Amino acid sequence: MSSPDIVLGPNQYGKAEVRVVRVNRDTPVHTLMDLNVSSMLRGDFTDCYTEGDNTRVIATDTQKNTVYAFAKEHGITTPEQFLLLLGRHFTEYAEVDGGRWTAESYPWERIQVPSSDGTLTEHEHSFVKSKQEIRTAALTIQNGDEHLMGGFSDLTVLKTTGSEFSGYPKDRYTTLPETRDRVMATDITARWLFAADVDAQEVDFDALYAQVKQIVMEQFALVHSLSLQQTLYAAGEAVLGAAEQIEDIRFVMPNNHHYVVDLSPFGLENPNEVFQAGDRPYGLMNASVTRRAAPERPQAWEWIGGFA
Amino acid sequence: MSSPDIVLGPNQYGKAEVRVVRVNRDTPVHTLMDLNVSSMLRGDFTDCYTEGDNTRVIATDTQKNTVYAFAKEHGITTPEQFLLLLGRHFTEYAEVDGGRWTAESYPWERIQVPSSDGTLTEHEHSFVKSKQEIRTAALTIQNGDEHLMGGFSDLTVLKTTGSEFSGYPKDRYTTLPETRDRVMATDITARWLFAADVDAQEVDFDALYAQVKQIVMEQFALVHSLSLQQTLYAAGEAVLGAAEQIEDIRFVMPNNHHYVVDLSPFGLENPNEVFQAGDRPYGLMNASVTRRAAPERPQAWEWIGGFA
Amino acid sequence: MSSPDIVLGPNQYGKAEVRVVRVNRDTPVHTLMDLNVSSMLRGDFTDCYTEGDNTRVIATDTQKNTVYAFAKEHGITTPEQFLLLLGRHFTEYAEVDGGRWTAESYPWERIQVPSSDGTLTEHEHSFVKSKQEIRTAALTIQNGDEHLMGGFSDLTVLKTTGSEFSGYPKDRYTTLPETRDRVMATDITARWLFAADVDAQEVDFDALYAQVKQIVMEQFALVHSLSLQQTLYAAGEAVLGAAEQIEDIRFVMPNNHHYVVDLSPFGLENPNEVFQAGDRPYGLMNASVTRRAAPERPQAWEWIGGFA
Amino acid sequence: MSSPDIVLGPNQYGKAEVRVVRVNRDTPVHTLMDLNVSSMLRGDFTDCYTEGDNTRVIATDTQKNTVYAFAKEHGITTPEQFLLLLGRHFTEYAEVDGGRWTAESYPWERIQVPSSDGTLTEHEHSFVKSKQEIRTAALTIQNGDEHLMGGFSDLTVLKTTGSEFSGYPKDRYTTLPETRDRVMATDITARWLFAADVDAQEVDFDALYAQVKQIVMEQFALVHSLSLQQTLYAAGEAVLGAAEQIEDIRFVMPNNHHYVVDLSPFGLENPNEVFQAGDRPYGLMNASVTRRAAPERPQAWEWIGGFA
Repeated sequence: MSSPDIVLGPNQYGKAEVRVVRVNRDTPVHTLMDLNVSSMLRGDFTDCYTEGDNTRVIATDTQKNTVYAFAKEHGITTPEQFLLLLGRHFTEYAEVDGGRWTAESYPWERIQVPSSDGTLTEHEHSFVKSKQEIRTAALTIQNGDEHLMGGFSDLTVLKTTGSEFSGYPKDRYTTLPETRDRVMATDITARWLFAADVDAQEVDFDALYAQVKQIVMEQFALVHSLSLQQTLYAAGEAVLGAAEQIEDIRFVMPNNHHYVVDLSPFGLENPNEVFQAGDRPYGLMNASVTRRAAPERPQAWEWIGGFA
Repeated sequence: MSSPDIVLGPNQYGKAEVRVVRVNRDTPVHTLMDLNVSSMLRGDFTDCYTEGDNTRVIATDTQKNTVYAFAKEHGITTPEQFLLLLGRHFTEYAEVDGGRWTAESYPWERIQVPSSDGTLTEHEHSFVKSKQEIRTAALTIQNGDEHLMGGFSDLTVLKTTGSEFSGYPKDRYTTLPETRDRVMATDITARWLFAADVDAQEVDFDALYAQVKQIVMEQFALVHSLSLQQTLYAAGEAVLGAAEQIEDIRFVMPNNHHYVVDLSPFGLENPNEVFQAGDRPYGLMNASVTRRAAPERPQAWEWIGGFA
Repeated sequence: MSSPDIVLGPNQYGKAEVRVVRVNRDTPVHTLMDLNVSSMLRGDFTDCYTEGDNTRVIATDTQKNTVYAFAKEHGITTPEQFLLLLGRHFTEYAEVDGGRWTAESYPWERIQVPSSDGTLTEHEHSFVKSKQEIRTAALTIQNGDEHLMGGFSDLTVLKTTGSEFSGYPKDRYTTLPETRDRVMATDITARWLFAADVDAQEVDFDALYAQVKQIVMEQFALVHSLSLQQTLYAAGEAVLGAAEQIEDIRFVMPNNHHYVVDLSPFGLENPNEVFQAGDRPYGLMNASVTRRAAPERPQAWEWIGGFA
Repeated sequence: MSSPDIVLGPNQYGKAEVRVVRVNRDTPVHTLMDLNVSSMLRGDFTDCYTEGDNTRVIATDTQKNTVYAFAKEHGITTPEQFLLLLGRHFTEYAEVDGGRWTAESYPWERIQVPSSDGTLTEHEHSFVKSKQEIRTAALTIQNGDEHLMGGFSDLTVLKTTGSEFSGYPKDRYTTLPETRDRVMATDITARWLFAADVDAQEVDFDALYAQVKQIVMEQFALVHSLSLQQTLYAAGEAVLGAAEQIEDIRFVMPNNHHYVVDLSPFGLENPNEVFQAGDRPYGLMNASVTRRAAPERPQAWEWIGGFA
């Protein structure tokens, strides 16, 4: 029944959102990794789509089992390392010639409890979830190339001054007044692409993650912003300046508008003291900061939602 | 402070989620269009990112105002037509050489009320929201080319039989038993790309939308499924077979697993009668069905989340 | 370590959100019930809280198993009937003297497919989820009394005219202009309490559900509304007038504000044609319509979120 | 048209989710309060419901304006103090004899930036959102009595050992194996009721909030748990033991199940090292810890979702 003029286009399949929590109990001081892993395989699966022939289809249930088995066999040191283990394993299958593996990693902090002398110390096996942001990682393997990314999503920041917006074109639909002082707030989502020649064994992914997060927050705080775009670029430039292993960093930044409430009907002034936090609509910035010498690696980025 | 070795990469910016409701009150029988519109502009905005120079930056607030003004000036006939109005307007700006405009459209039905003879008839100005699925549209303009898409998201379907899964490879991590009869359920998200030579004036987008939705549901129901992939392909092939204006259709289909509950501990059999509806993890299919003769149009698809 | 001056107050425990899908396959025309069931038990569980003594604690896992086993043994005719089965079962335990059982029920429609003569007919085993609203039920058992409720949540309705709001008090914080014509929209959540003397065996809960939903939509459409409160009351009064088994009906109705967009800066009039659909804040109405002769039954309502 | 046998029952109305951000800019070191405020009024509003007579209806828009105006006029010191200002204001209206005012408060931390000597110091006007939990407050005024509550929602904690569950009754539907060592995790939502004779002017609500949060986390960590109920009670007892102003504390605690993954098919042992984090269903505990001598104050708790 299949038509010769109609064909299967780009495709991938797998198991999404495998929630794996790995505890290391080798000492009384337990450690915890809490991940949400997705595994998507690419290859020639045409017969499955056109004929329902599953002889080449690695079951998504098998992919899920592999995540749990690998968590035991290899442990989870960092999200990046764990995705490399998974991606290299699945691409060893004859049926698989590439894929994408992604993870969200949820940070936990140790609960502080009083010690004998009354000072607070970290508990050995009790944790509280941070939630400040979600750490992410992504690995794409295509044509034998590995494209590895770190990242985070929804790091929410706000500055109460040090932000302006003016000098933009005015047309018949423009009503926005220029401002020299406004609240600027955003939920920063970032992904950074490691250079192809980086040896993953050599990278301290946790230290690098902490460094990138700190740099991005610092730039948000320190740059006197003429636009959210300028802040985004400054953050990206500072990250690339500090981390040579990173070749490209991309951001999605909504502009979480805070509207100055008009209190004049009540005989009150409002010199940027009372704001309505808006929901929708919101400005949205979506941009890459990259090295002039970086090669084009579109496969790293395609199909990753929201990213230019 | 800007480094010569670090440059701005791909970028776009705009206003997201402009919630516009357009009522036509020309007759006592009111009509309603309920859209969530996003407008993202592309062009040379380097100076804004690197210098905070906004002289080329059409304010996102202006983009929002334009959506509302156009809703009044031109009305909203279909999501596709409205996005074409917006995209062609913004690309007339010297500062803008392309962009992406997207819309969600929420279907509403008329509330039925009793007429004088007691039969139910449609009320003139009262509506109930359908929610069965969300209609979507997307327009990308790049290098003077227009890429127009229709679509829908989260059309949730389930069949209680007529689905199997077997014949897949077994490895050391495979535990899934083969099945000849299972529940198959998914939330169908689809986007279809109109051929470049389609004249939007000639297309009845509402009729086409209804036709595609019906075909997809029909194929889900009628195909005896050996895999969700096979059902996906059959749906895509049927759509392309019926709608010549469509050149490519892409689906995202999670496999909403329904697990047969083991009732044997309670001395009960369970011949596919009682299921636990699972949350996570879930299988995920992501594939395109296209015409062999279709040109490559990657710009139409890049940055659209989740789509191959 | 337990202090004599500190005691356990009101408490309940159980298993929440048991997702059970029950298929009836007795004939080729399958039927489907899709429920999300929660079971909360009440009794004297003090020793569990104060001493960690679980000898009276029916495990929440056991409650979950019972839901699945009962779905097989008894089937699921209606949410109300299924909750009565569960509640009466658990209150037979010596450890349990009451509790609350709730369910969400997700409506599914049959997919229409072409028959031999080309007309559309309902498919025997393929379904599409309605999503227009979620049906709910709740059973409270306390002191041997049963309090049974039906309901629905988030039935979203909108009228483009036939709504006013004026005549309200003006104080120094009032800026809202009076209006004789506005869009009125809300997400209707309702729960109705059956009279204590109703014999559940005698009630056609599905027919009654359809009747109440239709009456509420009709009143929303037909009442020329001077306030959302008036519409709420008219809906409740009509339901009580039509369904003698119902003793009390309570509504939660947000006022989904639709703001008339000021298009005058663009030289455009806006006679209630273009609206911004607002997110937050929203008006909120929370009220009961009841029979003058109805007994007080506070136990039926306490701990049910959002309801007066 | 109103029927004499049908009457208005309990009711309240108001404006929900007023998002107010208050900045104090009196010094270069700015401070920030970020609240989501709801105001619900109670009184005799029968004519509005039955006749559409709004002469006694304080517009919800006016309530919203009052929140913003008060944020300017009085500032926002703590959520509790701000709700007291609002509640006492609205109950001065002749039309209002009570109501409920609630707030969510979102904690922000200062972004750390390098100082001249390289050490990190707090930035004066840049903040990052904490998200670890949401602080809440609620004020109910009825019959001239004030019922004031503090609280928080969704403080997510997990311990990798130090939790058991055994000794529960076994029936024909019981399959859960007893365990002496399991992961215990929950999202703690708590509300504490201040004694009626507490003078709000005398309470350091911020210090008390920090103290309660720390005590609850400590008890979760330090109590060797025989059941989640036992942990809940220990936390409540410790709070009441430490904070004499608090008369009653109520918790909602889901049991966030972490299932030990069966790795035996892969020839692997799993001594509580690899877990699947479950979504639904989940155990749910809902209980009050109170003082034996505390008066009954049901009005404080009724209509607060989820709380016994």
